[in-house]
Amino acid sequence: MILRVGQGFDAHRFAASGSGRELWLAGLYWPVPENAAPAEAARYEGIEGDSDGDVAAHALIDALLAAAGLGDIGSLFGVGSHAHGAGMHGSDMLRETVAHLADSGYRPVSASVAIVGNRPKIGTRRAEAEAALSAAVGCPVSVTATTTDHMGFTGRGEGIAAIASALVERR
Amino acid sequence: MILRVGQGFDAHRFAASGSGRELWLAGLYWPVPENAAPAEAARYEGIEGDSDGDVAAHALIDALLAAAGLGDIGSLFGVGSHAHGAGMHGSDMLRETVAHLADSGYRPVSASVAIVGNRPKIGTRRAEAEAALSAAVGCPVSVTATTTDHMGFTGRGEGIAAIASALVERR
Amino acid sequence: MILRVGQGFDAHRFAASGSGRELWLAGLYWPVPENAAPAEAARYEGIEGDSDGDVAAHALIDALLAAAGLGDIGSLFGVGSHAHGAGMHGSDMLRETVAHLADSGYRPVSASVAIVGNRPKIGTRRAEAEAALSAAVGCPVSVTATTTDHMGFTGRGEGIAAIASALVERR
Ligand SMILES: [Zn+2]
Ligand SMILES: [Zn+2]
Ligand SMILES: [Zn+2]
Repeated sequence: MILRVGQGFDAHRFAASGSGRELWLAGLYWPVPENAAPAEAARYEGIEGDSDGDVAAHALIDALLAAAGLGDIGSLFGVGSHAHGAGMHGSDMLRETVAHLADSGYRPVSASVAIVGNRPKIGTRRAEAEAALSAAVGCPVSVTATTTDHMGFTGRGEGIAAIASALVERR
Repeated sequence: MILRVGQGFDAHRFAASGSGRELWLAGLYWPVPENAAPAEAARYEGIEGDSDGDVAAHALIDALLAAAGLGDIGSLFGVGSHAHGAGMHGSDMLRETVAHLADSGYRPVSASVAIVGNRPKIGTRRAEAEAALSAAVGCPVSVTATTTDHMGFTGRGEGIAAIASALVERR
Repeated sequence: MILRVGQGFDAHRFAASGSGRELWLAGLYWPVPENAAPAEAARYEGIEGDSDGDVAAHALIDALLAAAGLGDIGSLFGVGSHAHGAGMHGSDMLRETVAHLADSGYRPVSASVAIVGNRPKIGTRRAEAEAALSAAVGCPVSVTATTTDHMGFTGRGEGIAAIASALVERR
């Protein structure tokens, strides 16, 4: 068994307040809670991006592709609003990524993503997020989350970032 | 043997000048040198956080928990001044993390943390830091350190960050 | 076979416009295209640093040294304009790093680097970069690239960063 490691990173901006953009992250839709106060509702503003802006899924895709030596998310899905990945959800992009790896004889063994940002509160739905991502990738995928104590672009709430690692094996 | 990878990240703010907070990092206490000039002493200001603010230990904890699929530092130690981890040192949190992994049948194989910040100068005590962290984790733990050339919150000296990777095996 | 993981990070500032400094990244020289307009030429300004400023190579060096428990780039190549690494290209530093690992019985198995910055456009020369880095390290090395949507020091074009992972085995 030949084992290879891959490193991925992604960052996107939160949509402007009132954009009405849905918040998708770590393979999940994060709906605004019913009867939420405006300040609470604003915490569920979506993430910008040609696709659904799911930085956790995108960082994992880069980690998986890198581990297999198959390029990165830009080379597989394209860039811009007319790209193949335009409008796709992170889970679907992950499934397509894993199929692409399989075509070249690679199988994901383990993956992990650290999400860096103020919101949403990942811990409240970690098990659900890990289940969604693990189902898409076909191996255990873990999710951790942290803030940057109000420092930098993640700490000011401008955007959100994710760092991912993946192990794949060559069959 | 089943091998799994985990990714961790953490960032904390340096305490305000004159806070008197002790600086703990990478499992070590960094005392102000005797007879240090005020400018030199200010370089040893501690790191904020509910625990001792040891970002290197915290990023390693997230990497280890992620590798084993056991949540993250917030789910194990809680968040806030009344949390289980409040006031704990990074080494003790690492030991408790590894015991938690063992309960689920996981053993750390290898871990590594990259510290990003202006101070303290890790290189002067790297062997000591690696020995302290390796003893706490029970496998080889490496420490690298770099700055960001005065860019971003780490470069301006507002805070310090750490990125960690870990391999664990299922017994 | 004993497998160990290493994590590396590096960040450097772009040289001031008009510096005439060559842009080296991911083991490659990125020349200004002939007949480039001034705005285009400015996109090829080099990266500051005592060596050639190749953050991708430097992050990989830290990841490889960390995986083998052999310190970091500062301890192997020194810091400052009189350091051993002063003026060296990333590929040559990588070769020397791998020789240093071999002296201690370690062999690189797989490595991966995620470059974070606005320029140059890595995707246009990814295969070439991966070939250069893989030749220097003696194992498959993957390169991914992403931006931070105009956020932070990488998004403002002040500098460029890289996060790397490496697996090594003890012979
Ligand atoms: Zn993305
Ligand atoms: Zn922390
Ligand atoms: Zn460097």
